[in-house]
Amino acid sequence: MNSLKQILEEVLSEVKPRPEDEEHVNELLDRVVDALKAETSSRGLNVEVEVYGSVAKGTWLRGDVDLDVFLRADKGVPRDRLIGEGLEAARRVFEKLGGRWVERYAEHPYVEGWLGNIRVDVVPCYKVRPGEWMTAVDRTPYHTEYVRAKLSPEMRDQVRLLKKFMKGVGVYGADIKTGGFSGYLCELLTIRYGGFVETLEDASKRWRRGFIIDMENYYRGREGEARKRFPHPLIVVDPVDPRRNAAAAVRIESLCRFITASKLFLKRPSKVFFDPPEPKTLTSEEFRKRVSSRDLDLVAVVFGPVEAVPDVVWGQLYRSLDSLKSLLESWGFKVYRARAWTDEKTATVLLFELEKSVLTRFKLHRGPPVFSGEFWRFMDKYLGSSSVASGPWVEGDRLMVEVERRFKDAVLLLRSCLENDGGASVGVRGKVAEAVKRGFRVLRNLELWEVLKSNDRFNRYMSEFLDGLPTWLKSWVEEASKGE
Amino acid sequence: MNSLKQILEEVLSEVKPRPEDEEHVNELLDRVVDALKAETSSRGLNVEVEVYGSVAKGTWLRGDVDLDVFLRADKGVPRDRLIGEGLEAARRVFEKLGGRWVERYAEHPYVEGWLGNIRVDVVPCYKVRPGEWMTAVDRTPYHTEYVRAKLSPEMRDQVRLLKKFMKGVGVYGADIKTGGFSGYLCELLTIRYGGFVETLEDASKRWRRGFIIDMENYYRGREGEARKRFPHPLIVVDPVDPRRNAAAAVRIESLCRFITASKLFLKRPSKVFFDPPEPKTLTSEEFRKRVSSRDLDLVAVVFGPVEAVPDVVWGQLYRSLDSLKSLLESWGFKVYRARAWTDEKTATVLLFELEKSVLTRFKLHRGPPVFSGEFWRFMDKYLGSSSVASGPWVEGDRLMVEVERRFKDAVLLLRSCLENDGGASVGVRGKVAEAVKRGFRVLRNLELWEVLKSNDRFNRYMSEFLDGLPTWLKSWVEEASKGE
Repeated sequence: MNSLKQILEEVLSEVKPRPEDEEHVNELLDRVVDALKAETSSRGLNVEVEVYGSVAKGTWLRGDVDLDVFLRADKGVPRDRLIGEGLEAARRVFEKLGGRWVERYAEHPYVEGWLGNIRVDVVPCYKVRPGEWMTAVDRTPYHTEYVRAKLSPEMRDQVRLLKKFMKGVGVYGADIKTGGFSGYLCELLTIRYGGFVETLEDASKRWRRGFIIDMENYYRGREGEARKRFPHPLIVVDPVDPRRNAAAAVRIESLCRFITASKLFLKRPSKVFFDPPEPKTLTSEEFRKRVSSRDLDLVAVVFGPVEAVPDVVWGQLYRSLDSLKSLLESWGFKVYRARAWTDEKTATVLLFELEKSVLTRFKLHRGPPVFSGEFWRFMDKYLGSSSVASGPWVEGDRLMVEVERRFKDAVLLLRSCLENDGGASVGVRGKVAEAVKRGFRVLRNLELWEVLKSNDRFNRYMSEFLDGLPTWLKSWVEEASKGE
Repeated sequence: MNSLKQILEEVLSEVKPRPEDEEHVNELLDRVVDALKAETSSRGLNVEVEVYGSVAKGTWLRGDVDLDVFLRADKGVPRDRLIGEGLEAARRVFEKLGGRWVERYAEHPYVEGWLGNIRVDVVPCYKVRPGEWMTAVDRTPYHTEYVRAKLSPEMRDQVRLLKKFMKGVGVYGADIKTGGFSGYLCELLTIRYGGFVETLEDASKRWRRGFIIDMENYYRGREGEARKRFPHPLIVVDPVDPRRNAAAAVRIESLCRFITASKLFLKRPSKVFFDPPEPKTLTSEEFRKRVSSRDLDLVAVVFGPVEAVPDVVWGQLYRSLDSLKSLLESWGFKVYRARAWTDEKTATVLLFELEKSVLTRFKLHRGPPVFSGEFWRFMDKYLGSSSVASGPWVEGDRLMVEVERRFKDAVLLLRSCLENDGGASVGVRGKVAEAVKRGFRVLRNLELWEVLKSNDRFNRYMSEFLDGLPTWLKSWVEEASKGE
């Protein structure tokens, strides 16, 4: 039996950078900053080169560091020039230092470079007063400043524990795929609650949909206004900007997964929350057994990679998934689970678990009230029709009929809706529909082995999916049953 | 092609009593009234013997006449004496005239006698002023008076057409089984609209749930008050008593069936509405084909007769049916249709048509929100449980799990719920539960042939049920397709 204290110490010893890690990072930073200073001044671009983010705040995790270097210009510098010259300077620096780079665009363009295995983002921005933001990233310097001022060195370790916990239970990251908690948000929570365990305690006891954390009391006595301004499941008012919700990216599932993990961790602490095992790869035989021992049906739309940046890919995948789920439901299928999966490189899967993928030949169709204007349209369509098994009859004030389904097989329904336009007309989003149009298959149950056998990541994903439990939860339960 | 006029003339020639029918009825009436007068006066019971109902109003149908003879007492006569002596006098008269009799009780006791094949009800009541009713039947003399004053001889024939139409389409009668239109209500509608076709026209165009007919304008400008007082689908304010809805017995289905029939009749008039054929008796082979060509499942609870008067039997059957339907739905079965049937003598059937009578082994179970107090109860029950196929996982703000169903077969579910107490604990009503306790079977699909083969009425009922169309509607459609 490991005590809470032991567990946290052990985790911290793994995630806290050692002096040599700090040194390595600082050396690299110095080289990047110096090179950027030289490159920008040689181009006559008047910017300050500054380091922000987790390194500046001292909250980064060992073996998992991103460097954020900002090119901070005065308001007078034209945007075109800042972006054009700034990004060009960054590209030159990465080439000079022997790194790779790629241009990215989130809310604002930047260059993502790789020096060895360390990612360095170079981001042009403006030096402005709070509230007078000219770009989406102008707040970052203030975020760094706020966190540095509020976090003692001990508290930085508490942030590290929280980040590692969030990563372990799958809710770390403000990207669209995760819809979770950013590093800055982890820092704010630690500042607000004073520590890792204190954050979990409050989350497990008091958090619910629409919970507000307002550290600077911008909305004291006006919580309704905050909820109206921020229609998000969790509201953490940005201390640096009362008009911004630092938790806007947190989707309800991530919020609730974090709450669930917090409750379980506090009930019986374990290292599995921080370091969950990889899901097990299934053999053909194991997969066959797992699928056939449940009489639920798996139906998957399988196609190639969606060509766009990850946030666009995942945004469109999630919305496409919702559309296809609604489509299946509108045709009478009971959808137990719907999931999007992609390795972002070779394959994409929209996966549906259905109560039954093949329905009865006939369905009950509820028509209009007898006194509605639709009466004759319904009667003309169904009375004496060969597609009708029984009826029409009157139930309550409505006409009812048992009529043949146009699609009783979900596989045929999906195929038919996807085959011409990639599903665009049923709500599959643009980039996804394009990928579908390049070729897709609809697979059922054991047919999915085709994908599992050639893609280990999907295999492990399915292994976890069939459990229906994340591996940290599965391991936690196994530990409990072993009486550990 | 028959014109509307021809059809109505033909129907009328069949339902309007001929002079010899009138003579026969009047003769019989005279004998009964004379005998009742003699019998009551010899017992010193001071009542007026009066004829009310359809004979007094001249709206009875040939071959389908009930006589209503009232013993009308002054307020001073004690109720015990009126009922005791009045019913005794009636019994004596039926015995004297060589008839059968039985004592009945609706809202008020009376004697139902049979002279030949004509039914004669003898009903004790009080002579009171409108609104000062002492028994439920004291209004009847006023009803008769009102209708006689308002109906010309031609209009009486219009009433006959309306009654015959209502009978044909199955909505005639204020009894619980039918939940339809009483004779008096047919008369009021004819008075209100001026004729048979005019009634159907308004019903098909303007009637809807909560429609108000207020011939004497008791509620003019206060329709909301009427709707509040009368929570029924159709409101026909009794001209004789503004506190009574003459259409209180009309259930929404009967109302809507009448509206449906009206629309269809006016679109293409036909005699089938007045004289629908009997449903066809199914052979074993026909039944087998009909049932297996549909992949829906029939499940029937079959037991002996319910021992009570018809209104009690049907009231309890309908409520028991609703309870079992809810039971099935709460266990995840999709109930397409639920019907009660009994011949009131030998057998009772509660019949369910299900999308599937056997469900999947596992079901999706939606648990509490993660921030609810139920969190741990749910987790303790399902986390690591052997009855769980997948989960628990978080969806939206809720915990979800795929868990084994306790009952996946509707037949086993029904058996288990009925076997000890006749289903009383799941809402089967008293007299019905008693009948079930004396022995029941739960039959599925072709097993129902056991009942069909030995009970022709149930056989024909199932024949109509499988069509899902009343025979008048089926015939109407067939006529249409023949281009008649």
